[in-house]
Amino acid sequence: MTSGTVHIVGVGPGDPELLTLKAARVIGQSGVVAYFCRHDRMGHARRIADAHISEGTEELRFAYPFTIERAVSDPSYHDGMGTFYDECADKIAAVTAAGRDVALLCEGDPFLYGSAMYLFDRLRETVECRIVPGITGMGGCWSEAAVPMTHGDDVLCVLPATMPEDELASWLIKTDAAVVMKLGRNLPKLRSALERAGRSAEAVYVERGTQQDSRVTRLEDMDGPAPYFSLALLPGRRGVR
Amino acid sequence: MTSGTVHIVGVGPGDPELLTLKAARVIGQSGVVAYFCRHDRMGHARRIADAHISEGTEELRFAYPFTIERAVSDPSYHDGMGTFYDECADKIAAVTAAGRDVALLCEGDPFLYGSAMYLFDRLRETVECRIVPGITGMGGCWSEAAVPMTHGDDVLCVLPATMPEDELASWLIKTDAAVVMKLGRNLPKLRSALERAGRSAEAVYVERGTQQDSRVTRLEDMDGPAPYFSLALLPGRRGVR
Ligand SMILES: C[S@@+](CC[C@H](N)C(=O)[O-])C[C@H]1O[C@@H](n2cnc3c(N)ncnc32)[C@H](O)[C@@H]1O
Ligand SMILES: C[S@@+](CC[C@H](N)C(=O)[O-])C[C@H]1O[C@@H](n2cnc3c(N)ncnc32)[C@H](O)[C@@H]1O
Repeated sequence: MTSGTVHIVGVGPGDPELLTLKAARVIGQSGVVAYFCRHDRMGHARRIADAHISEGTEELRFAYPFTIERAVSDPSYHDGMGTFYDECADKIAAVTAAGRDVALLCEGDPFLYGSAMYLFDRLRETVECRIVPGITGMGGCWSEAAVPMTHGDDVLCVLPATMPEDELASWLIKTDAAVVMKLGRNLPKLRSALERAGRSAEAVYVERGTQQDSRVTRLEDMDGPAPYFSLALLPGRRGVR
Repeated sequence: MTSGTVHIVGVGPGDPELLTLKAARVIGQSGVVAYFCRHDRMGHARRIADAHISEGTEELRFAYPFTIERAVSDPSYHDGMGTFYDECADKIAAVTAAGRDVALLCEGDPFLYGSAMYLFDRLRETVECRIVPGITGMGGCWSEAAVPMTHGDDVLCVLPATMPEDELASWLIKTDAAVVMKLGRNLPKLRSALERAGRSAEAVYVERGTQQDSRVTRLEDMDGPAPYFSLALLPGRRGVR
């Protein structure tokens, strides 16, 4: 018996029409689909891919042991997540060892801050892994907001808002274009880093880009807290016009 | 009569299966497709989208006045390109004014170093423009090469190899992950910038990612010149494992 393959499949930023033809085919052909979710939710990637999951497909639901309950700075967070990812990888390996293919669904693109990378790192030596790229959250957001990002020789920096404010400000000063990810409770920090970089007026805020309840606004005009699915866009300088 | 819409459609990195469902639908429904190409070629984006262009669709072929014949540093390059983009925008505006929709096809994602942005900048005030994101060249490449890019708090910098070597080296020193685009004749410069940053051993070279004649190798093991469709990937540091 030959072993199965793990297809790590990006399902895009939210609009189910932003799946690729390849993602739709691979999901439909895999006997098993796997995905991360919060213990109390269906799973965002699972919902996006819904139309392509064939009748009778087996589902491996990987519910995070904690999401916001424990701080990332808590050392037990890393140990707990490590153990969780080990268990998920073992479950996938058991399915492929039995000769079946698995589609591991990921929001956006799998290799841009995707949890699936932690499983890939564990499985790559022993299981055949193939990656299907997805439209990134940022790509969905800049398209919906109609913000052209990089012209000519512009540099684009993708910055997690989780870093210290000083660092964030210094990246924002140096770069042409920027995408700031993982806003959530880091929004006040981003506002003050933008202020220090003199770039507050340029920033466009996008919440749940390409999803039904999406929102696009200048960051300066936005108030209230930012949800997890939000980011800020700073377009680059202009080249040839 | 209502005016038509310009759909600026990303067709992805080369594999025709990496189009989104939305791109396929929009291309099939537009009465006119437009695309850039070299005067002597069919157009790469046109070829990728081929299967989705309906019978009887009108084609607007925008052949660049020059590509490699004139250097970007030559001032006449900018004037010449500016005039060319003005003419392309006028042709699209004429079609939409007649009530027809146009799909402007773009390699990768339209808003990441895409020529379509120059038309968007000219049309946005007067014509309804909608953007359909595409899988980027870099996303296609890191998936094919199976190189996970950013974990946890990693910063990703997207760097055009056209910048001066000193600048390139200093970005490579600071960033966690990097994608270096537009290699071509800039490859020797990239090699020496990587050397100065102490990161030569990490770089993965991808040529024509996701296309039939693609090639993936460590940059150190690669010799010969790099074509236009090539880039280098430097994965980030690792977060939680
Ligand atoms: C852990 S990262 C995963 C990124 C994903 N793999 C991708 O390619 O977009 C989650 C962050 O991505 C951003 N994000 C992803 N999808 C988004 C969307 N549809 N709208 C706004 N932000 C999004 C948010 O900043 C969020 O905090
Ligand atoms: C003018 S930029 C256009 C980028 C495009 N809009 C995108 O989203 O990828 C062209 C550069 O993109 C990179 N590129 C695009 N597609 C690629 C592919 N399939 N393989 C390797 N590099 C690619 C190369 O570095 C090339 O010089």
